[in-house]
Amino acid sequence: MYPNSIRNLIESFKYLPGIGEKTAERLAFSVLDLEEEQVSLFSDSLRDVKKKIHPCPICNTFTDDEKCFICSDLTREKNVLCVVEDTKNVFLFERLGMFHGVYHVLDGLISPLDGINPEDIGLDKLIDRVKQEHFKEIIFAFRPSIEGETTALYIKRVLDGMGVKVTRLASGVPMGADMEYVDSLTLERALNDRKEIE
Amino acid sequence: MYPNSIRNLIESFKYLPGIGEKTAERLAFSVLDLEEEQVSLFSDSLRDVKKKIHPCPICNTFTDDEKCFICSDLTREKNVLCVVEDTKNVFLFERLGMFHGVYHVLDGLISPLDGINPEDIGLDKLIDRVKQEHFKEIIFAFRPSIEGETTALYIKRVLDGMGVKVTRLASGVPMGADMEYVDSLTLERALNDRKEIE
Repeated sequence: MYPNSIRNLIESFKYLPGIGEKTAERLAFSVLDLEEEQVSLFSDSLRDVKKKIHPCPICNTFTDDEKCFICSDLTREKNVLCVVEDTKNVFLFERLGMFHGVYHVLDGLISPLDGINPEDIGLDKLIDRVKQEHFKEIIFAFRPSIEGETTALYIKRVLDGMGVKVTRLASGVPMGADMEYVDSLTLERALNDRKEIE
Repeated sequence: MYPNSIRNLIESFKYLPGIGEKTAERLAFSVLDLEEEQVSLFSDSLRDVKKKIHPCPICNTFTDDEKCFICSDLTREKNVLCVVEDTKNVFLFERLGMFHGVYHVLDGLISPLDGINPEDIGLDKLIDRVKQEHFKEIIFAFRPSIEGETTALYIKRVLDGMGVKVTRLASGVPMGADMEYVDSLTLERALNDRKEIE
């Protein structure tokens, strides 16, 4: 029913997460209303992203340069390492602007139930890096979950005896949350992680 | 902060309606997870759509052929014309599969308040077509609105005396609607358009 080129564009939009047939149709038609240059830029940047973006050789953060913008920044505190499960989280923390150390991006979290073992998430590279560089502190910034706990505990055990301070993000009741809607696991954690008011 | 190629892709996604910074970021990152061929197809189809798609010379429906799939279909009833305000609506009706006539796509609706006058929506082409072909019936399938009414009335007046039957879609309470949430204009129309139960 649709012309071929529109059909192909609809199928392409459907590759993206959370985009079904209806939305893909709407987006494909909206491309017809864009300017020639906008569509060119769109088309080129899709190709470019796939061609140029690669993990930073030091920390795995996506970059299109030799090293990522963090690792090539001489003002960062090189002895504080924040370990995240996804390159997106680097940008999340950077937007916050509160962390001045460096990052290491894992390829996800250990999840034995899904068949994801320590060797699958690039831990070797992290361990090697920790052995070579001298970190004062390593912060695990994983999402609070069984997988996050498992991964943090596993790495901590491997690093034991190397004299590095290992921490994790506090987890607890989020700001502005209605107490009655907070799940029991979060509440339990908030209670365990309670802080003295000084 | 983001690598250039990702930044460009984020900006590109933001050209699309209803896509803001956050969603654009999410989509741009998801492109990195696609297969090489998927991204190629995506990139190519964006270009293709803009290059190959044009309005059918007869009815304005978008096509990448010489004539659209309706106008080149010999089995359609060539003497019943459905006039729509947007090419998307042709595909809407076709998906329904109940209409067997042909279409004419206007470039929107007359809206004096927005400075859109009869000459801005391609009425000449429609009038010329009606003069040349002999339609038994012309159905206006515009969205129920002041603009829809205005456009329908305007065309009807121009066609007066040409002996063509002119109809519009019924409008009224949508199926499954809660009566208390139906707006008064719709209710008024539903009352005026009431049908005898036979």
